[in-house]
Amino acid sequence: MYDTVAPNKLDFDTLAAMVRRAPYHRWLGVELEALNAEDIVIRMPWREEIVSSPSGGFAHGGVLAALVDLTADFALAAKLGRGAPTVDLRVDYHRPAILTEMRATGRVIRLGRTIATAEAMVVNAEGKLVASGRAAFLPPQT
Amino acid sequence: MYDTVAPNKLDFDTLAAMVRRAPYHRWLGVELEALNAEDIVIRMPWREEIVSSPSGGFAHGGVLAALVDLTADFALAAKLGRGAPTVDLRVDYHRPAILTEMRATGRVIRLGRTIATAEAMVVNAEGKLVASGRAAFLPPQT
Amino acid sequence: MYDTVAPNKLDFDTLAAMVRRAPYHRWLGVELEALNAEDIVIRMPWREEIVSSPSGGFAHGGVLAALVDLTADFALAAKLGRGAPTVDLRVDYHRPAILTEMRATGRVIRLGRTIATAEAMVVNAEGKLVASGRAAFLPPQT
Amino acid sequence: MYDTVAPNKLDFDTLAAMVRRAPYHRWLGVELEALNAEDIVIRMPWREEIVSSPSGGFAHGGVLAALVDLTADFALAAKLGRGAPTVDLRVDYHRPAILTEMRATGRVIRLGRTIATAEAMVVNAEGKLVASGRAAFLPPQT
Repeated sequence: MYDTVAPNKLDFDTLAAMVRRAPYHRWLGVELEALNAEDIVIRMPWREEIVSSPSGGFAHGGVLAALVDLTADFALAAKLGRGAPTVDLRVDYHRPAILTEMRATGRVIRLGRTIATAEAMVVNAEGKLVASGRAAFLPPQT
Repeated sequence: MYDTVAPNKLDFDTLAAMVRRAPYHRWLGVELEALNAEDIVIRMPWREEIVSSPSGGFAHGGVLAALVDLTADFALAAKLGRGAPTVDLRVDYHRPAILTEMRATGRVIRLGRTIATAEAMVVNAEGKLVASGRAAFLPPQT
Repeated sequence: MYDTVAPNKLDFDTLAAMVRRAPYHRWLGVELEALNAEDIVIRMPWREEIVSSPSGGFAHGGVLAALVDLTADFALAAKLGRGAPTVDLRVDYHRPAILTEMRATGRVIRLGRTIATAEAMVVNAEGKLVASGRAAFLPPQT
Repeated sequence: MYDTVAPNKLDFDTLAAMVRRAPYHRWLGVELEALNAEDIVIRMPWREEIVSSPSGGFAHGGVLAALVDLTADFALAAKLGRGAPTVDLRVDYHRPAILTEMRATGRVIRLGRTIATAEAMVVNAEGKLVASGRAAFLPPQT
């Protein structure tokens, strides 16, 4: 159903270091957990400042959007060898993410030369889907 | 072009307090700047932790997504009297947002009973469009 | 990565008849090709009236959007026993679809009570991905 | 709120002829109705083959998606002097479009060199919003 898979151009340690490089990623605490032939997994811990609700401990939709965006972007970076700017992003919210660490699985949908498309699925600590989405990216023109 | 405008159910101080209530909003530092008949304006200061790039000072796409989401949501809250959960979100990235405070203007596209749709346009300190988007929301069923 | 799969509530012949029922579906010539536990497949023949270009024979983006929308919707209908109105739709265009029949595979991402989300991937006669997307739907409230 | 408006590079008759050129546009019967400094208006008649429901006469979501896509694209074409391929599309469905001609107003959100973004709002014969959306496009690189 997906496009032909390209081989990874980065190894785990290189991609893990790239994930940690951005100040916002360090604030979120995101870490690469797995780099596979077809997908990557990124883990995000819970932290109190991501809450969107005065009571209740629901993660903010914008934080979940960031997790979808960066996971899709690094799934693409694994194939391209470097990151690519996001053109646009769609995120669907499936369940509240409450006081939970999250895991996002990212994979490339289409590795085009002009535009690439990738997706991410985010689950909570129990493995339930809380958000998912896809984004279009501009691969570097070289 | 937009749907008929409903009157605001909240005054400026009430909506401004709602904007500040979420821990993530306080972390972002977002503040209501204007509540008009047809739209609202939210201001977001710069802070170093929102950077997505190791060099360069570009705001992370996830932070801009949060600003689009919350601005659209509060534009809707002004009409509904309360917030509504986001069903899904689309964000377009138009220019890098570099070391700049931002202003987001939100307005309701369609105030449906089952689904409401609202949009937000985000500009940098020079008034240039850096991101924009729209979201679908679930109005409270009462 | 996807949510738990619900069993199908419709058999092949019933769903195939539903696909053919809409006048626009008959005009497009779409036919159910497979109904599996996790996905469905819909086939769309080529026809000259779907061309978007004065020369060249490229399928119109709106026709591909229709195929994404209806395939996601019937993937959901297989689980719900009936169709559900589309709240919103995202479609990504990956390659031109030129003078080719197409096959779309649809599956449910999240079968929520209030909102359901489903996706579709569209390939050309050579099995190359030409478009894909996802949509949010309103399941019947009973 | 929108980006600076570029002047139109096409006159009404040239753009109107471009709108009619695609076989699918002729099938839909879409016609340019107005070309203004900031937006364009396209009219689409009713026809029985666009119905999505066995009873009821509701326009298919895919046909509304086509109208959003093409109206946004021609709003951009007015500024660029030619069309541009769609990268991706988002459409929100606000009300059923029942046995009605429709009018779509398109305008450019951001005329970037690499990516351009445009939107369209679709109303029924009574002027009620039935659908709206936005798309990203690839301007010709010259």
